[in-house]
Amino acid sequence: MAGTRRVTAAVLIIGNEILSGRTHDVNLRFLGTELNLLGIQVREARVVADIESEIVEAVNALRGKYDYVFTTGGIGPTHDDITSGCIAAAFGQKLIRHPVAEKMLRARMAEMGTEATPARLRMCETPEHAEVLPNRVGGAPGYRIENVFVMAGIPRIMHAMFEAAVPFLEGGVTLKSTTVGSMVPEGAIATALSDLQDEYPDLDVGSYPFTIAGKPGSNLVIRGADEAMIAAAAVKLRALIADLGGEPVDGGIEHDANG
Amino acid sequence: MAGTRRVTAAVLIIGNEILSGRTHDVNLRFLGTELNLLGIQVREARVVADIESEIVEAVNALRGKYDYVFTTGGIGPTHDDITSGCIAAAFGQKLIRHPVAEKMLRARMAEMGTEATPARLRMCETPEHAEVLPNRVGGAPGYRIENVFVMAGIPRIMHAMFEAAVPFLEGGVTLKSTTVGSMVPEGAIATALSDLQDEYPDLDVGSYPFTIAGKPGSNLVIRGADEAMIAAAAVKLRALIADLGGEPVDGGIEHDANG
Repeated sequence: MAGTRRVTAAVLIIGNEILSGRTHDVNLRFLGTELNLLGIQVREARVVADIESEIVEAVNALRGKYDYVFTTGGIGPTHDDITSGCIAAAFGQKLIRHPVAEKMLRARMAEMGTEATPARLRMCETPEHAEVLPNRVGGAPGYRIENVFVMAGIPRIMHAMFEAAVPFLEGGVTLKSTTVGSMVPEGAIATALSDLQDEYPDLDVGSYPFTIAGKPGSNLVIRGADEAMIAAAAVKLRALIADLGGEPVDGGIEHDANG
Repeated sequence: MAGTRRVTAAVLIIGNEILSGRTHDVNLRFLGTELNLLGIQVREARVVADIESEIVEAVNALRGKYDYVFTTGGIGPTHDDITSGCIAAAFGQKLIRHPVAEKMLRARMAEMGTEATPARLRMCETPEHAEVLPNRVGGAPGYRIENVFVMAGIPRIMHAMFEAAVPFLEGGVTLKSTTVGSMVPEGAIATALSDLQDEYPDLDVGSYPFTIAGKPGSNLVIRGADEAMIAAAAVKLRALIADLGGEPVDGGIEHDANG
């Protein structure tokens, strides 16, 4: 599955509740991590409200710019679940009740002894040329249309839908990274770090500062496709930290996220 | 501070580490919640990588579309902190070392007994017509340029910068909400809920499903500017739930976020 080119993705999170602060999104982090393991780098994410024009515009902007787009949210049975209609509009396709999705939903409803209400059957609506992605959780499935994967917002269900999407993804370079932490403040190491970045233009050298009990430190992350090159840069990084009187900690230093 | 028009905002989160899944963003939720209390509704959020063209494009797209834009991340002392240069480019202004910011940073460095290195002084760079926002945490400040507020990514520092930004914000309608939860599944209540939404076009009726030990339920949120109208709609909502054999729970039902 791993190749040599960079394969990119965007995540589109749909829902007023994320923007109002009511719900804390946890899907972006999951997708960023999982996609990177497949050699796909998330390069952009957007969170949009439940407004058709906004969703359509975002879908079209992102699907033209990245190899893959993953949407989460808005595919449930209630009136505020408008994602599928918007995806159909973005692709200029009719919204249909997908026969495969309907079969899956009816099987699930029968199993649970609940009724396939018109509201529930709305969850089987997809753009006419969508391909449904059966998943282990059952019920209404997520689906793929061209390079766009449409998934639920509830993390547990999204995870199952993502699993079903994986066989359709072709990854590129898998980025590796090495983290070295220290209590050397960013301001003291910044110049040397910039020189290290210049010395290794094929790697990304990132600095993530924190404070522990009022003392500043930072975790330095070297990221790239070539593990030997990362290892060589990490040797230099550890030496830089030691030169500044710090003690390099492989794997980084844990700290409170609010630090 | 509260007015009668809708005042909108966008949040722009800058940083590779959010997209790679390495860091879990907690700033969007904070800003969504705090801004709503001020009568400002976050209508869109974007997460972009540390790439100048991407940041410039996002800043310009968002500042033209919303009343306010809040950026987080990329204003530290290291080479990967490129936000201020990008903001200057977006506004077509020169990047300067801001004298007020420099004074604040030097005072802080003297207090801490650390050196005002060239790297640290980079944190005092702003577009030439920016207004710095002194904050209680000290050090390099966030700043405002027209309707864009530029803040740090580290939550603790961002909170202090946001506090300093508040006096510059003019809010509009503050949205209120009432939540009623029940173990009635979405699929059973969806049609009635859609009718309730149609009856109250000035309110937003949202449904947030969950499962507890495999059983589906949902929290129903009625949101709007008019408290009496919300209360009237909530009375009908409780009756709808009871009609379907459910027990309405005011304030909603707590559940695992992954449910």
